[in-house]
Amino acid sequence: MSALEDALAQIAFDRDGLVAAIAQQHDSGEVLMLAWMNRAAIERTLATGEVHYWSRSRMKLWRKGETSGQTQQLVELRIDCDGDTLLLLVDQKGVACHTGRRDCFFRAVRGGKLDTIAEVTVDPAKLYGGR
Amino acid sequence: MSALEDALAQIAFDRDGLVAAIAQQHDSGEVLMLAWMNRAAIERTLATGEVHYWSRSRMKLWRKGETSGQTQQLVELRIDCDGDTLLLLVDQKGVACHTGRRDCFFRAVRGGKLDTIAEVTVDPAKLYGGR
Repeated sequence: MSALEDALAQIAFDRDGLVAAIAQQHDSGEVLMLAWMNRAAIERTLATGEVHYWSRSRMKLWRKGETSGQTQQLVELRIDCDGDTLLLLVDQKGVACHTGRRDCFFRAVRGGKLDTIAEVTVDPAKLYGGR
Repeated sequence: MSALEDALAQIAFDRDGLVAAIAQQHDSGEVLMLAWMNRAAIERTLATGEVHYWSRSRMKLWRKGETSGQTQQLVELRIDCDGDTLLLLVDQKGVACHTGRRDCFFRAVRGGKLDTIAEVTVDPAKLYGGR
């Protein structure tokens, strides 16, 4: 069995044919984002080394950074104990979040309220302006 | 609005009333596990500082470690850009995975095959033997 077949056989896709995938910066440990993958996204990611996801809103396969240039290079793909979550160790170019922040988890409950804890580092208009 | 109400208002619960929650060890950056929370699990977690989840298989609210003793103390709750994923910074006591491993992501595609990359550090029979 190939690595791909072996890995795919361990994955418990949900009723929509998707599996949750956490992207983590491989060296710093930052949790960047969570997105969803279908079988084709995993195949494409392992084949090319460029992380692909399934967009639930646009209902299409999506190469991370295809519009914004903020790509993710796969370092390692891991599967959890019950096969329903993937952990992608990646090398994130630039920012992972469409708001122009490094990661998507920029709101935190602190001191009794919801705070914005990370600044926009790249103007989203520059990332998506050409669209 | 209280912090709880403010946070809850930003969360996009799915059709089952759940939101994905990634647990990350606050100091080391290890991604420990992904589980699901409903509104009650979030309320209980923020109120007590002990992480609670919704068990999709047992269909019940569950305090992490209630059987195994491997509890998670909440350090910070973060919400992602579109409100459909939480990042919980936690202090994990012992092991997060029911297999007795520190985290759930112990299988990796390496060198063309799926490898087990972490050892069992606590015998699961000791964690769940009393049940």
